[in-house]
Amino acid sequence: MTTMADIADRLGISKSTVSKALSGAADISETLRKTIFETAVEMGYTKLKRYRDSGKRLCIFIENMGYSDPSHFGYDIVMGFRQLAEPEGYTVDIVEITEQMQKETKYDIYMMENDYVGAFFLGMSLSDPWHEELKTSRTPAALYDNYVANPSTAYIGVDTAEGMNLILSHLKEQGHRRVGYLSTGLGSYVVQQRYRAFYSALHRYGLYAESSVAAEGYFILECIQKHLPHILDQKITALICSHDQLANAAMIQCKEMGYRIPEDLSIIGFDDLPIAAYTSPPLTTIRQDRLNLGKSGYYALQSLLNGVPVSTLLLHAQLMIRQSSGPAKK
Amino acid sequence: MTTMADIADRLGISKSTVSKALSGAADISETLRKTIFETAVEMGYTKLKRYRDSGKRLCIFIENMGYSDPSHFGYDIVMGFRQLAEPEGYTVDIVEITEQMQKETKYDIYMMENDYVGAFFLGMSLSDPWHEELKTSRTPAALYDNYVANPSTAYIGVDTAEGMNLILSHLKEQGHRRVGYLSTGLGSYVVQQRYRAFYSALHRYGLYAESSVAAEGYFILECIQKHLPHILDQKITALICSHDQLANAAMIQCKEMGYRIPEDLSIIGFDDLPIAAYTSPPLTTIRQDRLNLGKSGYYALQSLLNGVPVSTLLLHAQLMIRQSSGPAKK
Repeated sequence: MTTMADIADRLGISKSTVSKALSGAADISETLRKTIFETAVEMGYTKLKRYRDSGKRLCIFIENMGYSDPSHFGYDIVMGFRQLAEPEGYTVDIVEITEQMQKETKYDIYMMENDYVGAFFLGMSLSDPWHEELKTSRTPAALYDNYVANPSTAYIGVDTAEGMNLILSHLKEQGHRRVGYLSTGLGSYVVQQRYRAFYSALHRYGLYAESSVAAEGYFILECIQKHLPHILDQKITALICSHDQLANAAMIQCKEMGYRIPEDLSIIGFDDLPIAAYTSPPLTTIRQDRLNLGKSGYYALQSLLNGVPVSTLLLHAQLMIRQSSGPAKK
Repeated sequence: MTTMADIADRLGISKSTVSKALSGAADISETLRKTIFETAVEMGYTKLKRYRDSGKRLCIFIENMGYSDPSHFGYDIVMGFRQLAEPEGYTVDIVEITEQMQKETKYDIYMMENDYVGAFFLGMSLSDPWHEELKTSRTPAALYDNYVANPSTAYIGVDTAEGMNLILSHLKEQGHRRVGYLSTGLGSYVVQQRYRAFYSALHRYGLYAESSVAAEGYFILECIQKHLPHILDQKITALICSHDQLANAAMIQCKEMGYRIPEDLSIIGFDDLPIAAYTSPPLTTIRQDRLNLGKSGYYALQSLLNGVPVSTLLLHAQLMIRQSSGPAKK
């Protein structure tokens, strides 16, 4: 096991300097402190024990998502996680992260400096610097809607394949045979999963499929202006959208074009955002059970902390049938 | 909430008869006892509390798999599950099941009669009568290598897609470009998953793929005699098999046909059975970490018991590289 003396030897400095840096003393230059931390991480020195509750500190990293108000998507996720973690004696910190902050600070060093034994990530995108670092980190981390092939990380989310099967089974029951799919940019793991699940489920339910029936664009406006008219030309009777916001924008545009929802066209979303029950008409969508997603994050992290290398923990999907979907137009 | 009186009313019998039947008294005919239990289940009467440890009884159902000796596949799975469940105060029974027994006894009734609050299934096949009943049961159950679209059940296993990616990434690094896949019958969920994962991974790694390169037969002998020669005709340099036993049979046959393993042909299995390290040559394969699979079963069941509707809990896959795989033949 690596000791402070090993780190001092490697760097050719005194053990007391290493000790000072690792304990956060003020009389060490920022550059030297950084070098000492990076060397410590590289050499596998991970136990700082600077805090009294050492071994019981977890961090929720949050990005691209609100969590401070009950109407925010992240609120219930954070609450579900804390509801299980805190009674077990864990301190849970919540840290908002940005791409800039991730560029400036190495993930493993951040975790070590703060004595966090595990992390739960919400809202991370595939292009985040820490996403790359998570591929090799040895600190247990649960990632909401993100998968990294590293035995120390677990992907948690709602079962996308099951959700898409529920949608297509519902549409088939309602007599639909030609179904379109509209997606925002494939820059996140879950959006890619939904896109693939659409084709698998089409195949499973023996419904019409050709590649031109699905389209993706980076911005909602691009999806609506460029791809939606093209998909509608394919004489579909139902349209699935990768997100509720996109489904709502598509409903508004289709109504302007003279379509009646759902008589001429059924529209279905994904997420069951708070807005979904209040769109016009209210949106049929796959529910993200946020409280239980938070609890799943804790279960996955607890498994990793106990040495059980969980790869994936998914919740059953639930289809919320509202008025935006109905029988296929004859 | 349904009471014994409700059950008695429905059947037009006395409450004491219902009470006697549910408490297992001997002076009730088997036919009447069965009717009373079926009605109780149908009416949602599920709390018998006949045992002192009521609410803390779990059952491991095991089929097509040994577990009593450390060399049996099920031994470590059962142990992993019990290692977590028993310190939490659960009584864990182990019950070997057969198709006949499943035909004779309804699953929900069996669970109620024995006051089990949750189940862990090992070795079930898609044609089992209880597999059908699990689609609508409301008793939490974790299923090893089986998926049922029911919010009360969770599928646990090793991440098949990740495992197949590890195999094809390893083969690609070793210069392989034409890879075959040989599978036993697609009558179980996990065999189907592996078959599909092969094509997805081939695509991902840009390797040669045409449908004739993969084949499946119900019996190992059929795979070896009928399908193996056909696959070998495709000038592959590596062969992946759906199970270690099949890989071992394929190695023996290929050696008889004059192939050198791995110089002429790399062969890779799935499962890492105890035999895998002792085949000739020792077999490269994907490990099923059985102790952690047992623990996953407990984690998934615990989540379901706490009202978190887990659909899927997968472990990270691990590739055990041994001597049956090597550089592609030039």
